[in-house]
Amino acid sequence: MANFNYQDIREAAYESNMQLPKLGLVLFTFGNVSVVDRAKGVFAIKPSGVPYEKLSPENMVIVDFEGDTIEGDMRPSSDTKTHAVLYKHWENIGGIVHTHSTYATAWAQSQRDIPIFGTTHADHLTTDIPCAPPMADHMIKGNYEYETGFQILNHFKDHGLDYREVEMILVGNHAPFTWGKTAEKAVYNSAVLETVAQMALLTEQINPNAPRLKDSLIKKHFERKHGPDSYYGQQ
Amino acid sequence: MANFNYQDIREAAYESNMQLPKLGLVLFTFGNVSVVDRAKGVFAIKPSGVPYEKLSPENMVIVDFEGDTIEGDMRPSSDTKTHAVLYKHWENIGGIVHTHSTYATAWAQSQRDIPIFGTTHADHLTTDIPCAPPMADHMIKGNYEYETGFQILNHFKDHGLDYREVEMILVGNHAPFTWGKTAEKAVYNSAVLETVAQMALLTEQINPNAPRLKDSLIKKHFERKHGPDSYYGQQ
Amino acid sequence: MANFNYQDIREAAYESNMQLPKLGLVLFTFGNVSVVDRAKGVFAIKPSGVPYEKLSPENMVIVDFEGDTIEGDMRPSSDTKTHAVLYKHWENIGGIVHTHSTYATAWAQSQRDIPIFGTTHADHLTTDIPCAPPMADHMIKGNYEYETGFQILNHFKDHGLDYREVEMILVGNHAPFTWGKTAEKAVYNSAVLETVAQMALLTEQINPNAPRLKDSLIKKHFERKHGPDSYYGQQ
Amino acid sequence: MANFNYQDIREAAYESNMQLPKLGLVLFTFGNVSVVDRAKGVFAIKPSGVPYEKLSPENMVIVDFEGDTIEGDMRPSSDTKTHAVLYKHWENIGGIVHTHSTYATAWAQSQRDIPIFGTTHADHLTTDIPCAPPMADHMIKGNYEYETGFQILNHFKDHGLDYREVEMILVGNHAPFTWGKTAEKAVYNSAVLETVAQMALLTEQINPNAPRLKDSLIKKHFERKHGPDSYYGQQ
Repeated sequence: MANFNYQDIREAAYESNMQLPKLGLVLFTFGNVSVVDRAKGVFAIKPSGVPYEKLSPENMVIVDFEGDTIEGDMRPSSDTKTHAVLYKHWENIGGIVHTHSTYATAWAQSQRDIPIFGTTHADHLTTDIPCAPPMADHMIKGNYEYETGFQILNHFKDHGLDYREVEMILVGNHAPFTWGKTAEKAVYNSAVLETVAQMALLTEQINPNAPRLKDSLIKKHFERKHGPDSYYGQQ
Repeated sequence: MANFNYQDIREAAYESNMQLPKLGLVLFTFGNVSVVDRAKGVFAIKPSGVPYEKLSPENMVIVDFEGDTIEGDMRPSSDTKTHAVLYKHWENIGGIVHTHSTYATAWAQSQRDIPIFGTTHADHLTTDIPCAPPMADHMIKGNYEYETGFQILNHFKDHGLDYREVEMILVGNHAPFTWGKTAEKAVYNSAVLETVAQMALLTEQINPNAPRLKDSLIKKHFERKHGPDSYYGQQ
Repeated sequence: MANFNYQDIREAAYESNMQLPKLGLVLFTFGNVSVVDRAKGVFAIKPSGVPYEKLSPENMVIVDFEGDTIEGDMRPSSDTKTHAVLYKHWENIGGIVHTHSTYATAWAQSQRDIPIFGTTHADHLTTDIPCAPPMADHMIKGNYEYETGFQILNHFKDHGLDYREVEMILVGNHAPFTWGKTAEKAVYNSAVLETVAQMALLTEQINPNAPRLKDSLIKKHFERKHGPDSYYGQQ
Repeated sequence: MANFNYQDIREAAYESNMQLPKLGLVLFTFGNVSVVDRAKGVFAIKPSGVPYEKLSPENMVIVDFEGDTIEGDMRPSSDTKTHAVLYKHWENIGGIVHTHSTYATAWAQSQRDIPIFGTTHADHLTTDIPCAPPMADHMIKGNYEYETGFQILNHFKDHGLDYREVEMILVGNHAPFTWGKTAEKAVYNSAVLETVAQMALLTEQINPNAPRLKDSLIKKHFERKHGPDSYYGQQ
C-alpha cells in the first residue's frame, strides 16, 4: 500500500464517481467526477478508461489547474483539462461531473437549449439549460479538452449566465457537464439534468406548442429552494 | 429516543413514503406522502428535502389543517399547505401523494388532460385525468402552496368533478397530486397515473387519431371495480 | 392446511403468474395466468385483485369451462370467463395470459394491428399481430368478459387466423391476451409481444415509411423455428 | 463429467454470453456470442435456444469455419454459419455478438444507417453505423445464415468499410451483429451500439434537422481513443 496524500479529495472523488452507475448515468467508463482542494490548488479525478468496479480512492489521479498530474500512476480522465480550466476560472465550484447520460446527450446532439417547461426545472435554475455550440475547427484541432473548457466559459460570458446559478451546460454534439459547490451537488445536478431532459422531450411530444413556464412560477420555485427566504429542506 | 405521539400515522406515512422510490416514482427527495388522523385533526408528512434512506417514523412531521407544525423538529415538506387545504375541504380522504413522476409531469407541463384511451384508465376513473391550469400570478406570488390547494379544489368544482371518484389531478406546469381513502391507495393511484400517462402518450404516437374510449366500455370497466355490483377483487 | 386437489395445475398457475412481475409485464395486480387440465375439464387461475407477493399454489382458483368455480375460497380473476371461452373452443391451448403491458396496451388503445417489421416478429408469427375492434355495446352491457372471449374467437374466424399459429391478440381499447400449448409458452408469448410492440413503435418513429417484412424473410424465419425442418433450439 | 477440449474458448464464450442479459441486451434466448481459436481454426458458440441461466462452459458448442460441429452434444446457435463466414473472411476478429437489442433492432427494421450525431458515436467509429439491405430472395431461400454472412461482407466491400474500424452492422429487417479483437470487445460494442441507437432516435425527435457531427470532431474523438497518439485509457 503506497502512502498517498490528498486522502480527503481521493475519497470524495471515489464516492462521487461510484454514484454515476448507481444513478444510471453512465455506461461502462463514459463519465467522470472530480473534487477540488482549493487550498492545495489540485483536484482528484477518475483515471481514464477504468471500469467503475475497479475504482478505489487510491487510483484517483491528483492534477493541478494546468491539467498536469501531481500524484498517481495512472493517466487521468481524457477530459481532465476541461475540469482544470473550469476550476481555474470558476473559483466557487468544488466538484465537476461529465457524463454521456442518454437524454441530456440527445439534447446536446440536437444543439438545442432545454426549454424551461415546469417546476422540476425551475426548482434548480431559472433559465433554459444552455447548449454551447460545437467548437470552431481550430479549437478542435488544437488543445481540444482545454478549449472545451473555454467554450463553456465563453458561452456563459456571452449569454450573461452565472455559473453559481446555472450549474450545468450541454456541449453541442458532445454531452453535458455539471458542477456545484461540492462533488455531491454536481452529481445531483447530473441526475436532475437527465430527468429534466427526458421530461422536456416528452412534453414537446405531448404538446408541440407547450409554452415555457411563466415568469412568476419560475421565480417562485427557484426562490423556494434558493432565495434568501428559501423554505425547502432543513436549515 | 424522544417519546412521540401519533405513532400510527407516523408509521403509515413512513411506510407510504418509502413506497415511492420502490415504485420508481421519485428521484432524490422529489415527492411526499401524508396520512391524516381525522379524530385528532392532524396529518403526518415527510420532512422537507430529506433523502428517503434517512426517513424514519420518528422524523415524520405532525401538522394541523392550517399547515402549522404540531410536533416534530424538522420542517415539513414544502408542499405541506397544499396537503392541509385538501384535508380540510375534502373530508373523505385519508392520504395524499405528490410526486414529479416522469410521464405524469410531462403531461402537466403540456397543460393537457390525459384522454381516456383504454380500460387500464377506465378501471380507475371514468373521465379524462384533469389538468388544472397554471395559477394566476397573484396566487403564485402570495401563499403559493396554500393557493395550489385552492387551484385543485376550484378546478374540481368548476368541472363538476367529485374527488371521491377522481382521485388524481395534474397541476399545470407543475406535477401530479393523488389521494385516496388511505395513503396506501393514494400511492397506488400515483403509480397507476404514471402508467396511464405513459400509455396515453404512446397511444397518440402510434395513432394520432386514436379515439377516446366509448361510453359503454368506460361504464363497464369502472363498475367492475367500483360500482355497487363490482366483482373485481375479494369481498 | 386444507387438502387441495388439482395440485399440478395449481403449482403451474402459481409459477406462471409469478413470472409476470419478474418480466416487467404487470403493475400491481394487472394481469393473470391460467393453466388447464383437459382431462378434468378445469383450469387454475389467479384470484382476483390479490397482489403477486401474496399468491400461493393454494389460493389459485379452480374453474370449469363455463366459468364456474369448482374449488377455492376466493373469487377468480375478473377475466375468468374470457379464459373459459377460449379453453372451451380452442382445444389445443394449455395456458392463457392476460396483461396490461405498456407497449402492447398502447397498440390496443390505438386500435391498430402491429405490423410485421422484422425477424424478431417473424420468429414467432407470420402475420401482423391482430387487434380486435372494441366490442359492440350490447356485448359490453351484457356478459362482458364472456363476450370478450367471443370477440377474440370471431376475430380469428373472420380473418382466417389459426390460434395454433397466432398465439396472441390485442383487444381494442383494452389490452393483450396470449396463449400457448403450456402456460410457460403463453407467458413467453406475452413478453415477446411486449418487445415486438415496442420495436414496432420505434421503427415507425425512425422511418414512418418503413416497409413490412418481405414474404421470403417471413417464411424463412418462421420455418427456422416452427416448420417441419426447423433447426432452432434443441431436438 | 466429460473430458472437454477447447477449455479456454469455452470459458470465454460462456462468460461473454452471460454478459448479454446483464447488459439488458437480450430477452430469453435472443442472442449469442462466439469466441474463436485461430490456431485451431474453431470457435465456441452458445447452443441454440438454451436459456442463459442454463448455460455453462461445458455446453458451448465447438464449430469450424464451415459451420460444422467439432465437439458438443447440442445444436449450435441457428446463426452459427453467419459467425463462421465472418471468422473465415475477417482474420483479425476474435469474437462476434448477435443480439436483438431493442433500439438497434428498430433501426435495422427501419432500414436506415444510424447517423453520426455526436461524440459518443465518434469515440467508437467515424462513419454512420451501416445498415445492410435485406437479402435477395434467392439468398434467403437458400443457405440463409451462410448468406447473411456474405451480405455483411459484401456490404462492407461495396461501401469501402474496414471491419477493423467499423465493428458493427445492422442487417436490414433483422438485427445487429458486432465483433472485435476479443469477445469482450464485441460485447462492449453491442452495448455501445444500443446506446448510440437510442440517442440517435431521441436526437431526431428533439430536432428533426439535427446536423451530423462535423468532420473535425469526428476525427478528434476517434483519434483520442484509436489513433497513433491516442490518449484515452491506460497504456
